[in-house]
Amino acid sequence: MVEIDPWGQVNIKDYSRLCKEFGIEEFSNVLPFISKPSLYMKRGIIFGHKDFHQITKALKEKKDFVMMTGLMPSGVFHFGHKVVADQIIYYQELGAECFITAADLEAYLTRDIPLEKSREIAINEYLINYITLGLKPKKVHFYFQTNWKKEYNNLSKFISKKTTFNEIKNIYGDTNPAKLVSALTQVADILHPQLKEFGGPRPTIVPVGADQLPHLSFTRDLAARMKSEFNFISPSATFNVLIPGLEGGKMSSSKPESYIALTDSPEIVEKKIKKYAFSGGQATLEEHRKKGGNPDVDVSYQWLRMLFEPDDKKLEKIYNDYKSGKLLTGELKEILIEKVNSFLKDHQKKREKAKKQVNKFLIKD
Amino acid sequence: MVEIDPWGQVNIKDYSRLCKEFGIEEFSNVLPFISKPSLYMKRGIIFGHKDFHQITKALKEKKDFVMMTGLMPSGVFHFGHKVVADQIIYYQELGAECFITAADLEAYLTRDIPLEKSREIAINEYLINYITLGLKPKKVHFYFQTNWKKEYNNLSKFISKKTTFNEIKNIYGDTNPAKLVSALTQVADILHPQLKEFGGPRPTIVPVGADQLPHLSFTRDLAARMKSEFNFISPSATFNVLIPGLEGGKMSSSKPESYIALTDSPEIVEKKIKKYAFSGGQATLEEHRKKGGNPDVDVSYQWLRMLFEPDDKKLEKIYNDYKSGKLLTGELKEILIEKVNSFLKDHQKKREKAKKQVNKFLIKD
Repeated sequence: MVEIDPWGQVNIKDYSRLCKEFGIEEFSNVLPFISKPSLYMKRGIIFGHKDFHQITKALKEKKDFVMMTGLMPSGVFHFGHKVVADQIIYYQELGAECFITAADLEAYLTRDIPLEKSREIAINEYLINYITLGLKPKKVHFYFQTNWKKEYNNLSKFISKKTTFNEIKNIYGDTNPAKLVSALTQVADILHPQLKEFGGPRPTIVPVGADQLPHLSFTRDLAARMKSEFNFISPSATFNVLIPGLEGGKMSSSKPESYIALTDSPEIVEKKIKKYAFSGGQATLEEHRKKGGNPDVDVSYQWLRMLFEPDDKKLEKIYNDYKSGKLLTGELKEILIEKVNSFLKDHQKKREKAKKQVNKFLIKD
Repeated sequence: MVEIDPWGQVNIKDYSRLCKEFGIEEFSNVLPFISKPSLYMKRGIIFGHKDFHQITKALKEKKDFVMMTGLMPSGVFHFGHKVVADQIIYYQELGAECFITAADLEAYLTRDIPLEKSREIAINEYLINYITLGLKPKKVHFYFQTNWKKEYNNLSKFISKKTTFNEIKNIYGDTNPAKLVSALTQVADILHPQLKEFGGPRPTIVPVGADQLPHLSFTRDLAARMKSEFNFISPSATFNVLIPGLEGGKMSSSKPESYIALTDSPEIVEKKIKKYAFSGGQATLEEHRKKGGNPDVDVSYQWLRMLFEPDDKKLEKIYNDYKSGKLLTGELKEILIEKVNSFLKDHQKKREKAKKQVNKFLIKD
């Protein structure tokens, strides 16, 4: 197993190396062929892909395609999760049929989270925020791994025929029966939209974080091995960099100082950014004015680039001003605080309305 | 893995050794406590058990209990299969709720049998013969592993959390992901009737052939490990000797000379017994009259004892006459041929009526 974890600072060179190691394409190669690229695409937040041309082709020829991704219901919904949520909505707006799995089985098998707890988190934290961010009920299947159709369950078992313990071990490292069952279920999550009961073989885009890379490679291999029986088209995928945690390390639901939740209050936001956000500034004001800061390692700047400042010119000015020492760390943090709280004020208001729509997305038992 | 396969000649001493090795009780110990023992019980065809007292207790106290067993849909239904079928019906008549799994998933994963083929065999060979032998639709769940409720599927995955690769390897020997998934599914087959969705924790009797012994031990261990979460009662089990094949080796669906199918014609029955049935007689008529035959290794005699001669006195006379040389091998075979064909004439007539009842047993999709 290749160590992809943790992603502390964002260093695009590491991602380039990753592309080479896993044989994935740099996203910049397909960018010119996308008519309406998202900000994540343009800014290189989405840095790599597999077979994205299948999606551009489907879009060009106005053919059906699927967006498939999942969530691990393990805590509050924070800005790290927003990156995938925005991509779901992006593909829905382009016409994709969306399959979103709430990985309650995996949460139970690998993290001991009870199913009821998973259900609550998946709905209250994830689904409601998806809706608030713009997800519409049309052509969306938001399902739980323990509560989905039998053909999906059967597929997760059929897959066992096409792999070996050694392969699983090479991909997932130290493993056990529960991890194996989780892995087989995840493969079924990605491939089942192509079963005839769910719409048949179609190009599928799987937008995921860079940490899912080995898993996607495995699934694509299995799709090829099952082609004669199921006629699967190997799923396409994009890989996004992981948003750095406030302190510069990995953003983690179990470390509140590493993230800002979409339910955090303005006071909490201000406090977290002021107290924890890793700075690329100098030790003293005088030194900063003289030598300038380093926006490439400054988390406030990275968050603006990745999440909060869509205007390239404004972003460039911030970059240059910080680098020259004109913009101080405190001032940069204030820009971020203002942006985050402005976003959250609107989001949290819309969230109340979104709550009422939840039932449109849930499968009746 | 202990080698339990193949069972050639029936030698009760081997089964006794097996009881000791696997820590199972000899069935004769509980026989006095059963008010209406079956012929299989009285004759020692059912030679061992685990926790059968839970069943005698449920019967005595008129409490609910479950009968659970399965079939591997891999060929024609022959007299080897009848032993389990008769036990299913025996427990149904005692009031058990019956769960019968058609192991189509396992047939696909471990023997490459397509699901449609399994379905056809399970219904035409097994279910129709069960009905002909006396199975009634009341309180029977005849289901396919790929077409049963989600709680059952989920259980088969939850079980993965409670075992290790080493344990699986020790029990099943050389293994792979498909065999692991099959094993977990089989455990769910046995335990799921105790989920609240299927009636809750109750004593369960699993009547199986001796070859299923390691699997039952594994399932009982898992039931104990899952007790705190699911309140499972460890399933009880009985183990029957395997009916010897005509030639004295293992009876196998893939070797027509080893079995008599319940659909065989009188001519085929006569031909198979005359040509193939392993004899305990002497090489010449003269020698046989002088030295006598050996009924303990004679397959015709064993089939009479196990399947076709319920009258102890008549059986004893046949035994003694054969042993003394009074009864010749040809004559013994004629007795068996007459018994088999008499049974099959009646069975095959009733079978036509049974066909019309099939739909009462099948789950609507």
